[in-house]
Amino acid sequence: MTYDSWSLTEERFEEEFLARSESLFSIGNGYLGFRGFFCEREPAHHPGVFINGFYEISPIHYGEDAYGFARFNQTMVDLPDCRYLTVTVDGQRFDMKSVQVDEYRKKLDFHTGMLSRTVRWTTTEGKKVVTTWETIISMEHKHVGAVRLQVSCASDARISVSSSIAMPASRAVAALDPRVGTMLNRPSLTSLGYRLLHDDDKHPIGFEGAFKTVESALHLTCGALHECTLSASVETRTEEDGPPSLVFMHEGRSLELCKHFYYLSAGRPGESFPLETIRKGKFGRACTRWHDLVASQRNHYIQFWEHALVTVEGDEKIEQALRFNLLQLHQSTGTDGMSSLAAKGLTGSGYEGHYFWDTEIYGMPFFNHTDSKTARALISYRISLLDHGRARARDLAQRGALYPWRTINGWEASAYFPAGTAQYHINADIAYSIFQYLAITDDLSILTEGGAELLFETARLWYDLGYFNPEKKGLFCINEVTGPDEYSALVDNNAYTNLMARYHLGHVCSLARRMRRDMPDEWNRITKVLNLQEEELEQFAQAANMMYIPFDAQRGITLQDDSFIHREKWDAAKRGPIKHPMLLHYHPLVIYRHQLLKQADTVLAMFLLHDAFPWYLRKRNFDFYEPLTTGDSSLSACIQGIMAFDCGYVSLGDAYSRQTALMDIDDLHHNTKDGLHTAAMAGSWMALVYGMAGYRMVDGVPAFRPQLPGSYRSVSFSLSFPSSLLHITIDRQRTVYQVKGTPRTIRHRSETVVVGSEAISRPTRATCKAVIFDLDGVVTSTDEYHYRAWKRLADAHGWAFDQEVNRRLRGISRMQSLQVILDHNGVTLPTSEMDTLCELKNRWYRASLASLTPQDILDGIVPLLDELRRRGIATAIASASRNAPYILGRLGLEKTFDAVVPAHEVVRGKPDPEIFARAADLLGLYPEECTGIEDAQAGVDALREAMMRTVGVGPAVNAADCDAHVDSTGQLAIDLLLF
Amino acid sequence: MTYDSWSLTEERFEEEFLARSESLFSIGNGYLGFRGFFCEREPAHHPGVFINGFYEISPIHYGEDAYGFARFNQTMVDLPDCRYLTVTVDGQRFDMKSVQVDEYRKKLDFHTGMLSRTVRWTTTEGKKVVTTWETIISMEHKHVGAVRLQVSCASDARISVSSSIAMPASRAVAALDPRVGTMLNRPSLTSLGYRLLHDDDKHPIGFEGAFKTVESALHLTCGALHECTLSASVETRTEEDGPPSLVFMHEGRSLELCKHFYYLSAGRPGESFPLETIRKGKFGRACTRWHDLVASQRNHYIQFWEHALVTVEGDEKIEQALRFNLLQLHQSTGTDGMSSLAAKGLTGSGYEGHYFWDTEIYGMPFFNHTDSKTARALISYRISLLDHGRARARDLAQRGALYPWRTINGWEASAYFPAGTAQYHINADIAYSIFQYLAITDDLSILTEGGAELLFETARLWYDLGYFNPEKKGLFCINEVTGPDEYSALVDNNAYTNLMARYHLGHVCSLARRMRRDMPDEWNRITKVLNLQEEELEQFAQAANMMYIPFDAQRGITLQDDSFIHREKWDAAKRGPIKHPMLLHYHPLVIYRHQLLKQADTVLAMFLLHDAFPWYLRKRNFDFYEPLTTGDSSLSACIQGIMAFDCGYVSLGDAYSRQTALMDIDDLHHNTKDGLHTAAMAGSWMALVYGMAGYRMVDGVPAFRPQLPGSYRSVSFSLSFPSSLLHITIDRQRTVYQVKGTPRTIRHRSETVVVGSEAISRPTRATCKAVIFDLDGVVTSTDEYHYRAWKRLADAHGWAFDQEVNRRLRGISRMQSLQVILDHNGVTLPTSEMDTLCELKNRWYRASLASLTPQDILDGIVPLLDELRRRGIATAIASASRNAPYILGRLGLEKTFDAVVPAHEVVRGKPDPEIFARAADLLGLYPEECTGIEDAQAGVDALREAMMRTVGVGPAVNAADCDAHVDSTGQLAIDLLLF
Repeated sequence: MTYDSWSLTEERFEEEFLARSESLFSIGNGYLGFRGFFCEREPAHHPGVFINGFYEISPIHYGEDAYGFARFNQTMVDLPDCRYLTVTVDGQRFDMKSVQVDEYRKKLDFHTGMLSRTVRWTTTEGKKVVTTWETIISMEHKHVGAVRLQVSCASDARISVSSSIAMPASRAVAALDPRVGTMLNRPSLTSLGYRLLHDDDKHPIGFEGAFKTVESALHLTCGALHECTLSASVETRTEEDGPPSLVFMHEGRSLELCKHFYYLSAGRPGESFPLETIRKGKFGRACTRWHDLVASQRNHYIQFWEHALVTVEGDEKIEQALRFNLLQLHQSTGTDGMSSLAAKGLTGSGYEGHYFWDTEIYGMPFFNHTDSKTARALISYRISLLDHGRARARDLAQRGALYPWRTINGWEASAYFPAGTAQYHINADIAYSIFQYLAITDDLSILTEGGAELLFETARLWYDLGYFNPEKKGLFCINEVTGPDEYSALVDNNAYTNLMARYHLGHVCSLARRMRRDMPDEWNRITKVLNLQEEELEQFAQAANMMYIPFDAQRGITLQDDSFIHREKWDAAKRGPIKHPMLLHYHPLVIYRHQLLKQADTVLAMFLLHDAFPWYLRKRNFDFYEPLTTGDSSLSACIQGIMAFDCGYVSLGDAYSRQTALMDIDDLHHNTKDGLHTAAMAGSWMALVYGMAGYRMVDGVPAFRPQLPGSYRSVSFSLSFPSSLLHITIDRQRTVYQVKGTPRTIRHRSETVVVGSEAISRPTRATCKAVIFDLDGVVTSTDEYHYRAWKRLADAHGWAFDQEVNRRLRGISRMQSLQVILDHNGVTLPTSEMDTLCELKNRWYRASLASLTPQDILDGIVPLLDELRRRGIATAIASASRNAPYILGRLGLEKTFDAVVPAHEVVRGKPDPEIFARAADLLGLYPEECTGIEDAQAGVDALREAMMRTVGVGPAVNAADCDAHVDSTGQLAIDLLLF
Repeated sequence: MTYDSWSLTEERFEEEFLARSESLFSIGNGYLGFRGFFCEREPAHHPGVFINGFYEISPIHYGEDAYGFARFNQTMVDLPDCRYLTVTVDGQRFDMKSVQVDEYRKKLDFHTGMLSRTVRWTTTEGKKVVTTWETIISMEHKHVGAVRLQVSCASDARISVSSSIAMPASRAVAALDPRVGTMLNRPSLTSLGYRLLHDDDKHPIGFEGAFKTVESALHLTCGALHECTLSASVETRTEEDGPPSLVFMHEGRSLELCKHFYYLSAGRPGESFPLETIRKGKFGRACTRWHDLVASQRNHYIQFWEHALVTVEGDEKIEQALRFNLLQLHQSTGTDGMSSLAAKGLTGSGYEGHYFWDTEIYGMPFFNHTDSKTARALISYRISLLDHGRARARDLAQRGALYPWRTINGWEASAYFPAGTAQYHINADIAYSIFQYLAITDDLSILTEGGAELLFETARLWYDLGYFNPEKKGLFCINEVTGPDEYSALVDNNAYTNLMARYHLGHVCSLARRMRRDMPDEWNRITKVLNLQEEELEQFAQAANMMYIPFDAQRGITLQDDSFIHREKWDAAKRGPIKHPMLLHYHPLVIYRHQLLKQADTVLAMFLLHDAFPWYLRKRNFDFYEPLTTGDSSLSACIQGIMAFDCGYVSLGDAYSRQTALMDIDDLHHNTKDGLHTAAMAGSWMALVYGMAGYRMVDGVPAFRPQLPGSYRSVSFSLSFPSSLLHITIDRQRTVYQVKGTPRTIRHRSETVVVGSEAISRPTRATCKAVIFDLDGVVTSTDEYHYRAWKRLADAHGWAFDQEVNRRLRGISRMQSLQVILDHNGVTLPTSEMDTLCELKNRWYRASLASLTPQDILDGIVPLLDELRRRGIATAIASASRNAPYILGRLGLEKTFDAVVPAHEVVRGKPDPEIFARAADLLGLYPEECTGIEDAQAGVDALREAMMRTVGVGPAVNAADCDAHVDSTGQLAIDLLLF
C-alpha cells in the first residue's frame, strides 16, 4: 500500500465505513465546516454542516438536582446544507448505491484543502458518465465556499442538476456513551423564510434562507449563487415553508455547474448582522469565481505549510497522517476570537461541539509555534468570557473566576460535576497557555486586552479554593478536585492540579513584578479594576511556596493524589481482564476505586512543568504510572509518548507517537465516525516535536534532545518565533538547524549554539561530555575498611558475617547494608536501633579511613583523570557513601572532580539511577551525555537505567550488562569511556 | 396553651398552613393512606391518597450518562380519591373559603386513628348548619375505609350531598430541593373504566373504577358503597370516561351519609387480582357498618397502645408529640411484607415515597420492641427483593447482593450515586436490623424464609468490595463509599461503614456456627444454594478481624474517614455564616470540601455499636463531632440526643430529643407540608428509650441508665419481648420496673435484677459503687522522688528547675513533664532524645523508689480502704505513672485495689477523663457510679469530665471544682465519698 504525503484518498465506497469517511474527509476554515458527505446526501451517516460556536441550548435535567449544577446544555447546531446538489442523467438520479459505479475516488488535497470526488458510472441504459464534485471552503473569506460539479457523458444525454438547501435531519438520541453527548431530540432551527436571488436580468441565480435557533436565539442566513458554464435551462421550484430549488438541465455530453454558497451567523444571542452589506460586499465580488477561489486557497496553504510542514522519511504512512492531522486541525480551529477548537472540531457532533482544555493544553503548543495569530485568537475567546467565569465562581462560593470545564458560550455545560466542574485545573491550563504564548511571542498587548485580568482573576480562585492545612504541616492543600485522569474523581491534592496551581500563582506574581516595572499605567488600571492589593499577591506567593505536592518517600515517586496509593490494584483473577474503554463497561464507583488511569495525569504535569522534576523523578514516575494508564482517553498516547522519549524509551515513545498520529486515519478508538480527535491531532505534532526532537523551552532558549526511532530515516519540522523561523531536520547521523530571519540561540542537548541562515549540524546521538565515577572500588578501595568495621559490629553482636555476605554490600547504602546483615542472621531491630548501629559502624570505619593517603588511589585513575581534564571532559563522583568528601580529601582529590553528589540528598540508592542522574544534573548535562564507571552490579544496573555508557570494573559485575568491561582500573583506557 | 395527650386538634382554619395541616392530619393503615385534606377537596394543597408500594416508573435522564447508573425512577402514585364528598345546603355548596364559618374543629384521635372535622356555619340565607365528617381507615381490613358525614340545620333546608371519585390533579414539577423529588409531569394512571354498583333491588348504592399505571402496569380497583340513614332521594350522574357520581338529596333538618370506600391493588407489575372475590368477601359483609368499623378500630388501638404507649409527666406538649409520632408511624408502615416505611410514610410525596435505610436504622428499634410482627414484615419485604440486590451487585461489578439506596420496587432509584448507590452501608444497615430482630425475638424462622440468604449474600459484597491494603499494614479497607453523612461523599474508609461491615461480617460468621449446630439441614441447604464454602467464611472472619477503622492517635478520636481531618474548617470570616440547609445553598463541591456533617455519622455508629467503643471514646468523639454537625438532616437530632445523654449532657440530650419529637408538629424543618418525617418520629421514641432511659441490649440483657431532664416529673414506656412486656417508669427519685408475663433479667446501671409482675424500684440517680484513687499525693507521696530525679536531670543539662516548675508536673505524664521543663528553658529536642531523657529520669526515680515502705502510705488511707472494703465499695488506682504497680508493691498494697489502670494503654492523659473511665470499665461500672480522689487540678478536671463525684485533696486543686475538698488525706471521711 502506498501513501501520498499530500492527500488522503479513498478508492472504494463501502457503506460500512461511510460514517468514518465522512469525518476523515471533513473540510472547513475554522468558522464553517462540512463533514465529507456526498453532495447528494444519500447515502449518508451524518451530513453535518457546522459553524464554530453556533449552538442551541436546552435545559439539563437531573434525576436528583442540587445547588449550582450546570443548568443548560449547549449543542453545536446541524445547519442547513447549501452545498446540496443532485445529478440526474436520462432521468436516472445518481447516488452511490443505486447506480452502477465503475470507478470511485474521493480525495482530500493537502495543498488546497479541496475535497473532490470523481465517479465513473453507467446508466441503466448503458451510458458511461463521469461526474466530478470539488468543494472548497474558503480560508480567505470565512463565510464562503463553493462546489464545482462536472458531468460528462460518452454520448448525448439529458443531464439535469437540482440545487437546493437541505434541512438537517433530526438525529436519534444517543445511547450511554458520554463521549457522544445527549443530542437534541427536537429541531434546533426554525426557518424565518426563504427567497430566490436573481441576477441583474432578473434571471434566478440562487436562493437564500434565514434561520434562528429555537432557544439560544442565534441568527443565521445562508444561501447560494450558481454559475453554469453551458446555457442550460433553469427551472425554479418553490415550496411553501420549504427551501426553493433551481434545476439546471442540458441535453448534450456535459454540464458544469459552480455553486457558491455562504453562511452568515450572528456571534451572540439575539444579535443580527448587516446581511446585505456582507453579501454584496466581499461575497458578491471576489468569491464567485471558482479559479480565484482555488488560487486564493492554494496561496493560503503555501503560507500554512511553510510553518507547519513536517516530513518523515522512511515512513510515508506516518508522514501522511501527520500532515492530514495538521490540515484538519487548521480547518477546525476558530480564529475570530469568538470561537475555539472543539473536541471534534467542525468534523462531527461528538462531545456536542464543546470546547475543553484540549485547546489550551493540546492545541496551543502547535499554534504558538506555527501560527501565533490563531493562538492569540484562542486566548481572546477565553478573555471574552471572563465575566461568565466570575459568575461561575460565585455559584461555587469562590472568589475570582472559574472557567467552565466544557462550554461553547462560556457557561458551564458539564452535567456530571465529578468529571466536570471539579476539574478546577482548567483555570491553570488556560493560564499556562497564556504564559507560554507570552514566553514565545512576548506579545504583551494580550495583557492589556484582558489577558492580565483573566490571569489574576483565575489565580484568585486558587487561593480561595485551597487552604493552609495544619494537618499537613501548614502546607497549602487543594481538596475535592478532579485531575486530568477522570478515572479518579473528587480527590484531595491532585498533584497535577497543585503543580499547575503553583505555576499559575507563581507566574502571576512574576507578572505583577514585570507589569509594575514595564507597564506601570496598565498595572495601576488593573489593580484598581480588580481591587488587587499587595497583600493578595503576597498570599499568592505564599500559597505557591507552600504548595503541597503528594510524594511517596518510600517509592520516591510523586503521588497522583492523597488517596491514589490506597486504591486497589485491578485484580484480574477476581474481576477478569479489564474491558476497554472502562467508562463504557464499569460503574464510576468501580473505576474510581482502582489504581488505574484514564490518561496521563502526573505524567502530563511532568511534561508541562518539565523543570519542576529532575529527570530521575520523571523517569521513576513514568515507570510507575505507565503500566496503570489505560489510555482510554485519546488525549493520553501523545503525552505518554513524549515522556517515554524523555525517559529514553525510544521504541515505546515511537509506538505511542504512532498511535496518536493514526488515531483517526486508522480509527483506533472506534469512534472516528463521531468526529476527529483534534487534541490527538495536535498531539501527534507534539509527539514529534517534544517527543522525538525532545524540544523544550528552557529559560527562553529552545532546547533539543533528538532521538530518532529505528524505522525513520529522518524527520523535519519548523518552529516559528516572532522574527525567526527555525527549521530542524533530524536524521540518523546528524541534526541540522537553520533559521530564516533573525539568528537565534538554541541548545542541542547541553551545547548552546547560535543558528542563522546557514545550516548548523550536530550529531544526532549524544556524545560523551562527562565521566562519572563510583568511589569505592573505582577511585580507591575502602572495601577492606568497610569489611572490618562491619565484621567488628557483627562479632560484637554474635552475628555471622563473612566476605561472601560482604560482597552483597557493594554499592548500597549503610542502612541497606545493615539490613542485609540482619536478614542474613534473621534478626529484626527497630529503626532507631539500626540508626545507632550504623552510626557506630561508621565511626569505626571513619576512624580507620584516617589512614588513607593519595597512595591508595587505584591504578590508572590519576592519569585517566588528567587525560579527561585535558580533553575537556567533566568528571563527577556518584557514591552512596556519605564519607565521600572525607575520603576524597584523604586521597588529595578534593578539588579534582567537577561535582560530588551529596549522598544524603539521594532518596533512592543504586540500582535506582537517581544518583547518576543527579551527577549529570550537577554538571548541566543530560544523562546520555555521560559515561559511568562502576565496580558493583547495583551501580551497573543504575547506569543502564540512567541511559549512560556503562563501564564495569572487576569481577563483581556482569560484563554482559556493561558497554565495556575491564578487570581492573589500570585497564581503563580513555577510548573505552568516550563515545 | 393546653395539649391533649390523646388527640391533635386544629381549631382555626388558616390557608397559609393548609399544606402542613394536611400532612399532620394524615390517616392510614400502613397500606392505604390519606393526607388530612378536606372531603370536598377545596381548598387543598395536595389531596394525596396513596397505597404503600404502589408506584409509577419513569426513565431517569442524565445530562451525562454512565455505565450502571440507575435507569428508572419510581414515584408513589397519587390515587383517585374515593372519599370525595361535597355538601350543598339550599343550593349553596360548602367549602371553608366560600361560606361563613362560625366554628371549626379538625381532630385526629389517638384512640381510634379517626380524623374528624366539625364545622358550624351559616348559609347566605342565615341558616345555621353543623356539618361533621369522620374518617377511619380500617386497621383490621387494610383495603377499606369509611367516612361518615352528618349535616344538621337549625331549620328545614334542601340538603344534598354529592359523592364521587375524584381524580388526582397533576402537580407542578418541583424546584431544586432534592428532598422533594422530581415529580412526574404526566398522569401516572389511566382509567380502565367505571361502573355503578347496585343493591339487590337494583338501586344504585355505589360505583367503582379500574385503573392501571401507565408504565409500571400496576392495577388498581377502587370504589365506594353508600348508606344513607334517611330516605334521601338518590340521583345518578355518569360521564363518558369520567367517574360516575351519586347525589343524595333530602329536604329537612339533617342528613347522615356513610361512604364505605375500598382500594384493591395488585402487588407486582402486571399482576391482577380476584377483585369480585375480595369485594364480595370481606368487604361486602363486615366493613359496611360504621359502628363495627369504629369498634374494631378502637380495639386495634387498645392493643397498639398497650405496647407503644409513652407517658411524660410534666410536659404535656412532648407527651402529645410522642404519641402523635407513634400513631403516625404506625399508620404509615407496611405490614404485608410487600411494602415498607417510606421516608414520608403515606403522608406526602416527599422523596417520592421511596424506602431508605430509615426503616432499618430508625424504624426497626421501635417495631422490634413494640410490634415484632411488623418488624418481621419489614424484613420480609427486603428478603423478597434479594434477587434485585444480586443483579445490582453485578451492575457494580461485585459479588453478592447490594441493596438499593432508595427504592420502592427493589431497583435502585437514586439518580445521584455519590449520595445514593455509594452508600453501600445500606447492606449492613439491613443486616444489623435483622440481627437485632433475632437478638430480641429469637425468631429463627426468618432465617429459613430467606433471611439467611440475605445475610450471607449482602456480607459477600463487603468482602468483595474491600481489600487488604498493603499501604495500611494489610488491614481491610473499604474505599470510595459514602457514609450516612452525605456532606462528605466518595471517601475511603468511612468509619461508620467499616464498623458496620465488621459487625455484619462478624455476625454472619457467628450465625454460620449457630446454624451449623442448631439447624444443620437448613445450613446444608443454604451452603448449597449459595455455594458457600468454609474458606469464604474464614475470609469474612479475617476481613472482620482486620477491618481498618480510621483513628487519630493525637486527638484520640475515631476519624469519620481517611480524609475528614484534612477538610477545611468552615471559615465564617471568609465565607460568611453557614446558610441552612446547606444542600439548598451550596454546590456539593463546597459542602464536601468542609469539615461539616449533615447528620450523625461516627456518632451513629457509636450508638448502634455501643460495645465497640469505650465510654471515654464515645464522649471524646461526640465532643469532636457535635459542633461540626449541622443537623440539616432530620435524622440527626435523635441520634445526637441519645449520645448526648450517653455522655452525660442531659440538657443537650433533652434539647435534641425535643427537636426530634416536635420536628413535624412544630414544623422545625419547614417542610412538613411535603409529608411527615417518619424516621424522626421513630427517633423520638428512641431518644426517650435509648436516650433518657439509657436502654441498651447488653449480652442479651436489657440494661438501663436513666437520666431524667429537669423539666419532666416522670416518663414511662414499655418494651415488649417474646413472652414478657417490660414496663419502665422513671421519676426524679425512682425508676420502677415491672413485667407482664415471664419474669426477665434486666440491668439497672451496673446492678442485675430479675423483674416479675411485682414492681421493682431503684434510685434513678446513680449511687456510689466504687472509689478511684490517684496514686501520687493521694495514696502516697512520691513528689519528692520525682522532684529529685527531674532536678538531677535538669542540673546535668544546666536547665532551670525548681519547686515552682515542679508543681506544674502534677498528674501529667513523664513525656509531658519533660516538655514542660524544656519549654520552661526554651529548649527543643528531637523525640528520640526526649525518650532517652525520660528513660534516664525514670531510672533514677525508680531506683529511689526502692526506699518506699508501707510507712509511706499517706495518713488515713489504710483505714479508709478498710472501710470501703467493709461496705462492698470497689477501689481502683488511676495513675499516669507506669511505676504504679511497682510503687503499690513497695507499699504492700499490691492486692488491695480491685483494679489498676495500665498506664501505658492510656491514649490521652489527664485532664482527659480516659484513665478514670477505664478504671470504671475495669470494675464493670458506669462512670457516674464512681467517686474519684485527686490531688492535682488535671485530675480534678478529668474526674468532672468523667461525671464522677470529685473529691479533691490539698492545695494544688481548686476546691470550687470539687464536690468535696479536704486539706489532707487524713480528713478523707467516708461520707465525703459516698452518694
